[in-house]
Formats: sequence, structure tokens, C-alpha cells
Amino acid sequence: MLYFPTLCRIFALSKGKSQMMNQDTICAISTAQGGAIGVIRISGPRAIEAVSHIFNPISGKPLKQRRNFSLTFGKIFSNEGEIIDEVLVSVFRAPHSYTGEESVEISCHGSSYILQRVLQLLIGQGCRLAEPGEYTQRAFLNGKMDLSQAEAVADLISSATSATHRMAMNQMRGGFSRELSALRDKLLHLTSLMELELDFSDHEELEFADRTELSQIADEIEQVISRLANSFSVGNALKNGVPVAIIGETNAGKSTLLNALLNEEKAIVSDVHGTTRDVIEDTVNLRGLTFRFIDTAGIRQTTDVVESIGIERTFQKIGQADIILWMIDTDNSELRTQSSELKTEILPHLEDKNLIVLFNKCDKVPSEQLSEWEASFADVDAPKLFLSAKHRMGLDELETLLVKTAALPEISQSDVIVTNVRHYEALIRALDSIHRVRSGLQMNLSGDFVSQDLRECIHHLSDIVGEVSNDSVLQNIFRHFCIGK
Amino acid sequence: MLYFPTLCRIFALSKGKSQMMNQDTICAISTAQGGAIGVIRISGPRAIEAVSHIFNPISGKPLKQRRNFSLTFGKIFSNEGEIIDEVLVSVFRAPHSYTGEESVEISCHGSSYILQRVLQLLIGQGCRLAEPGEYTQRAFLNGKMDLSQAEAVADLISSATSATHRMAMNQMRGGFSRELSALRDKLLHLTSLMELELDFSDHEELEFADRTELSQIADEIEQVISRLANSFSVGNALKNGVPVAIIGETNAGKSTLLNALLNEEKAIVSDVHGTTRDVIEDTVNLRGLTFRFIDTAGIRQTTDVVESIGIERTFQKIGQADIILWMIDTDNSELRTQSSELKTEILPHLEDKNLIVLFNKCDKVPSEQLSEWEASFADVDAPKLFLSAKHRMGLDELETLLVKTAALPEISQSDVIVTNVRHYEALIRALDSIHRVRSGLQMNLSGDFVSQDLRECIHHLSDIVGEVSNDSVLQNIFRHFCIGK
Repeated sequence: MLYFPTLCRIFALSKGKSQMMNQDTICAISTAQGGAIGVIRISGPRAIEAVSHIFNPISGKPLKQRRNFSLTFGKIFSNEGEIIDEVLVSVFRAPHSYTGEESVEISCHGSSYILQRVLQLLIGQGCRLAEPGEYTQRAFLNGKMDLSQAEAVADLISSATSATHRMAMNQMRGGFSRELSALRDKLLHLTSLMELELDFSDHEELEFADRTELSQIADEIEQVISRLANSFSVGNALKNGVPVAIIGETNAGKSTLLNALLNEEKAIVSDVHGTTRDVIEDTVNLRGLTFRFIDTAGIRQTTDVVESIGIERTFQKIGQADIILWMIDTDNSELRTQSSELKTEILPHLEDKNLIVLFNKCDKVPSEQLSEWEASFADVDAPKLFLSAKHRMGLDELETLLVKTAALPEISQSDVIVTNVRHYEALIRALDSIHRVRSGLQMNLSGDFVSQDLRECIHHLSDIVGEVSNDSVLQNIFRHFCIGK
Repeated sequence: MLYFPTLCRIFALSKGKSQMMNQDTICAISTAQGGAIGVIRISGPRAIEAVSHIFNPISGKPLKQRRNFSLTFGKIFSNEGEIIDEVLVSVFRAPHSYTGEESVEISCHGSSYILQRVLQLLIGQGCRLAEPGEYTQRAFLNGKMDLSQAEAVADLISSATSATHRMAMNQMRGGFSRELSALRDKLLHLTSLMELELDFSDHEELEFADRTELSQIADEIEQVISRLANSFSVGNALKNGVPVAIIGETNAGKSTLLNALLNEEKAIVSDVHGTTRDVIEDTVNLRGLTFRFIDTAGIRQTTDVVESIGIERTFQKIGQADIILWMIDTDNSELRTQSSELKTEILPHLEDKNLIVLFNKCDKVPSEQLSEWEASFADVDAPKLFLSAKHRMGLDELETLLVKTAALPEISQSDVIVTNVRHYEALIRALDSIHRVRSGLQMNLSGDFVSQDLRECIHHLSDIVGEVSNDSVLQNIFRHFCIGK
């Protein structure tokens, strides 16, 4: 006879949530302003009822008698009988809707005046405006998707590259959830073995798995969690961009390079030394990969307080970057005589970073001088490129080099990649717990202690799919959604 | 036996158009960028076929076997089998769609990456991107609506007040078309009587309507066309705003007033005389009416060439305005001594205009001085208001006065109001023709001449609903639509 009361309690938390919030019928405009079509979504027990009070079909049966997944053409009327719009109305009956509730979508002409009028009429029928993400939150609470899938919906909407799209699509379609579910099955198996040992350890006639076998299972679990947690560095780089810091002496052309890569005039460029004081960040897609470029203040001795703060920040930013572009003004011959000092100043900050040295303004300088520059950096072990940011020379080579240096793998739609900080943190906590389980087993600690860590591990994994999440966590997740989703 | 070959030829033009453009299957994103939902529309003979190649329903029958006005949930796949999105697909079978053609709408997650991918897949299936307004143009060509109704669709989408919404809704629903149709019936009746007179005038045994009776019918027609043409001044004011010019000496606070009414900082305000050199226009909704405010350069003697051009423009603008706000700087006592000159300079330009005199900066000036100002303008027959634009004093009274002065009627959804310049110009031409018909009848001209004018009148009216419009007119109309409509 197996029993594991704590687990049952944890899993029980996921039930009954559907009763919490679904009393209201909510409405919202789900499309952006402008455009030819605007869509209003209504969800909740009175959705069809409320719409049927403001909508008359052109012909045929009234809305309430329409089939599930049917479209009806008709008119929205004001209380005074004025026609507000001719619209198409979609009917979705519970539980066969996105939220799992009775739902209606009204497809109007894309006039914000019309959309606002229709919303007012729905509010007049007792609906209320939806909070950001409330449709997806209801889908979660009604068991249409777990929390990690719900979070993927927002990622899917904001996805801008094929890689972020694939990761979000896999997560939304439950790839991550299935992986977590398999993990929990293993953990439950391990827990059951542990609790058997605890309960029946005085029955000598029963045989239990020995601790070596338990350790092996814990090992396997640890490897999976570890792999998932490690995927976050790739997932985060793909989602938020590979951080690239551009450093170098003042006036080396760092802002010009950033502008050339961004194709717009974000950074201020001038001929006065020390123009860039604020660290400007921007992301740009190069060959399907997102890079987060960090423009920094120039590095030089300065008495200007504001600028020296900027330089301090530059060295901070280096710590956050994966790739460092070190720009050198080849037209500044004074600099070359100081190049050994420069290297001593900068190189210590670049340990464990992917450095690329850029010899800028190479259009202004004779080639023998460029060779001298190259020679003086012969001791720096990094790829080097000659370019002219101003005249967009060498940018193609730089892009190729950046994509190669980032070394991010091709993502397929079946790869499970963690992209969410909340999930990553939960995995790190789960990893910590399973570590303790392993060492507890090795140190032959009492099953009570080991079971406690096992339960914690399960708890952290359950947190990801939302089975043990509390309301404030949920609110925090869904308020970052757009309204109407 | 009645026959009127010219008319038959004119009306025959409206047939056969449906064969012109409908070979292609077109696709476009019909929603604005951003938002939770994005909708792609496909229309044309291969619409359902093309979508069925990239879409798999989650369950049930394939798309091609789905019912008209049905919704199907499923997945969009790339050619490599990658899932692009989970979507809802609406099927509309010809002629029961907006365009009258086979049509599909795909409701995706509102990611521009996803929407672009789906468009690419559709183009891969032989669809092409729709031109602006091409859906509505096809609806027109397929006889789903006439041209004035099609034009109202764009007005409906851009409507921002209840009045513009009502006018556009009435026009889209055929209110104007019905009025024109009734007019043409009368014209056809008159033509038939005229042609009868022509063909059978040698058969003395037949009796014809006498010229007095014909004149009466022509009178009635003229009155209706005249009423429609006159409605344009109201329709135009409601749609584009009542034009209001703000004039006055330099530094009277004209830009400050404009900013206060607009609630934003569009005009440049400074203390230097003659700051505003460009004429700035902006519209603002006051109590449901749109006003188009015209800020003007100050009126004063100046040697500055740029500024004197501005002053010249001011007097031009006065000609276009319905309401003139004359602002006076009450804090400038020098001005009061010149007030009689000022009045001589300005008043002649304001004949037939609705003038409102605004005594500005009244917070700075003692009340006895304000009374003196009022006294010195006692001979000007116009409403006068004391205000402080800077401190937003008196703005409420000004708004009330503006709405009262505009004197625009309340529009109901059954009022036929002409809002479109193209329609107005056609009505003016039709009015001109019916004038000639009337005078021809009075002068007892030959029926041939009168019939020619009658045919022209019908032609101009037919132009409004698009029965005789040529392709370049159509293209000009629809290219102002947004893509996806």
C-alpha cells in the first residue's frame, strides 16, 4: 500500500481554482488601434446573453440558439435603436473556448469610436473591462493550459525571430510541461520508494530498493533538471539578445558603429571627445539572431565628473556582456604609442569574454600604418577586423563574426529551452533540493530528511506549471500581458 | 412603346464589371500591428483551397468541407512541417462574403512575426498581397454595394464623433443611394415623357404631357438635388471640422489659446512679438463637434518679409473660416488708443463671418480698464468674452459660444447628408444640368436639346454610385483606403 499525503495535498491545490474568478463576464478590445478590423472579446457565464441584447442577426435564429463555432452576421444596436455597426459574431460555448468559458468575439469595422461604443454597450449589459492577460489567466484557472503554457502565449505574441517563435510555440504547446511531468513521475516514484522504506522498515519480510538504486534515480533526475537550467543561457540570449558591449577610447567611433548596425540615429555622434555619456542599449536582429548592443562612454583619463561616472559604468557593463567589441581609432597615431598601456588598462577586464578587436577609420589611414597597428596587437589573442563604421565598410564581416562568436545553436520546434527567469529560478531551487537528496542518500541520512528535500524539489517544479502558485505570483505574471489576451 | 437607348447604354455599363479583377486571390493583414489578435483576410476563387494547404483542423472535416459561416480551430504549418500558429479559421462561400467571393479569415496570435510568416505561406500558395481598399473594391465590383456605400466604409472606419459615425453609417447602409435611386426614377420618368414626345410628335392622335407638367417634374428634381448639395456644408463641417480662424495683434495670446483648446503644445509660444509664422491647423472635439482651428500670424505693421507673408496668409485664411476669434491683448493700453484704426483694418475682412471678440489676459488688468475696452468695442456687433488663455479662465464660456455659433444641426441616422467632395461636385454638375433642362423647357427648346441635358443629369448622379465611373476614378477612390479593407 503506497501513500504520500504531502504530495496529494500539493496536487490538490490545483483543483477548485476554477471557482475563484469566473463570476464576472469580461470584455476587451483584442486588436491594436487602427486597421480595417477590430475584434472585441467577451468571456464569462453571461457572454452570449449580454451580446444577444445588443445584437440582431440579419436573418435566421437568435444568437442564443446558434451553434458552437458558428459565425453570425448582423447589427449592433444602441439602447436608442441606433445602428452602431454591422458585425460578425463568433460563438464559443463552454468548455470549447480559449478561456474554457462561454465566449463571444465581435468583429467590427476598425473604428475606435465604434469599438468604444460597443464596449460601453457591453458594460451596460453588466460586463466589465478585462484586466491585462485575464483571458489567458482564466484559461489557466479553468485548466485549459498550465502556467508555463500561459506564459508562453505572451512570449509567442512578442516573438520577433524564428528562434524565439519556435521556443515560445514549443512551450505553449506543452513541450516544457511534458518534460516537467516526466520529471515529476520520476520524483514521485522515488518518493514512493522512500516512503515505503519509512513505513515498512520494520517489516523485514518486505524488500526495498537499496540506497544505491535510489541514488541512481536521483542522479538521473539531477541531470535532467541541470540540463533544463543550463538551457536558460541559450534561451535568454535568444529571447533577450546576446549582450555585446562596445568599448574603446573616446572618439574611436563607437556610437557611429552602433548607429550603422542599428540603421538609425539613436546615439548622439559628434566630433567632440567624450560625447556619449549615457549607456544606450538597443537590440538588432543580425541574420536571425538578436544582439543587445551596449554603447558605452569612452575610456580615457578624465577630470569631468559626469564622464568618469560613465567610464565606471563601462567596466560594469563589460561584466554583463558576452561579447566585447574593442574599437580602436587607427587615425590617432598618438594612441599607438600608448597601445601597451591601453592593453594593460583594458585587457584585465576582459577575462572569460569573447573579444573582437576593431580597427576603425581604416579608410583614413595608409595600409602600412594599419599593418603597424596589427603588429602592435599581435599579442592579443582575439579576432581582429579593419573597418570604417562611418562608411559602412567591413560591417558584413563584423556581422558574420558576431553570429559565429555568439555560437548559439539552431533551435528546432521540439527542443525544450528555458527562456523565463521565473522558471530558471524554480529549476535552480529544484536543483538545490535534489542535490541535498543525493548527498542525504550518500550520507545515509534518515529517510525523513531525504523525503523532505524530495518534496521541496517537487514543489519547485510544480511552481513552474502553476500548481502551487499563489495569487500574487499569478497577478504578477498576467499583468505583463496586453489587455484583450 | 417606350424606348430610351442612351439610358440603357449607361446602365449597361454597370454589368460585367465583376469579371474584371477577380481572377487573383488576394491576402492581407486586416488588423493594426500590436494587440493580442491579428486577422488575415483571403479573398478570391482559390481562397479556401490556398488556406487548406497550410492549415490542418485539430479535429473533424478538412477545411474545404466546412460549412459556410463556420469557425475551425487548427494549426498553420510551414512547408517544412513547423507549426507557425494555432488559429481560428472562418469560411465564407461566394456570394455570402464581404467581397462576394470565396473568402477566409485567419485569426492568429497578434505577433507580427507570425502574421508575416502566414502571409508568406499564402503567397507561396499563389495568393498575392491586396492593394489598399481592394476588398471593398471587389465588393463594389461584385455588386455587394454601390460606390457611395463603398466610400462610406472608409469614412466609417475613420469616424471619431457620433455625428460622423451616423452620417457614414447611413451612407454605408444605402440611405444616400436610395435617395439617388428615387431621383433617377423621377429623371427616367421625365426622360420617357420627353422621348415619347420626340418619337411620336407627328402622331396627332396621341396625347402628351404638356411642357408645364414637365417643368413641374424638373422643378421637384432640382429641389431634391439642391437640398442634397446644400447638405454638404453641414456634412463637411461635421466631417472635417468647423473652420475657426484665430486672429489679432501679435502677442495677443493666440497660440496660447490654441494650446489651451488643444490641450497640448503644438504651437510655439514665446514672449517675443511675432513668434507664430506658420499657419498651424488642428482639429479638436468640443462637446461632440469637431472644430478645425487655424492659428495665424499676428496682424501688425512689419518690415520682416517672412512675417508679412504670414500676415497675408492670415487674411487668406479668414476667407476659409466660418468663425473668427478676434483676440485682443487687454494688457496693451497702447493698443486701446489705436483700437479705432485696428477696427478699420480688420473689420472689412470679416463681412459675412461669425465674429467673436475675445478680451485676453483679463487676469492682468483692473476691471475698470476692462470696461473701457468693452466700451471701445461697443460699435462691434459680435459676442464678446473676457478670458485668460494662459490660466484657462473663460474657456468653458468660449466652448459654449463656439458650439452655439457653429449652429450645426443634430444629425439622426436617417438624415441623408453629403460629406464627400466627389459626391458634392457630381451633385453640383447634376444641378447645373437640371437647371438647363428647366430653362430649355421654359424657352420651349427642341426636345432633343432638353433630352441631352437630362441624360447628363442622370450621368452625374450615376457617377456617385459608381455606375459610370472609369477605372482611374475607382483607383483614386480605393487607394486612400487602408490595406486589408
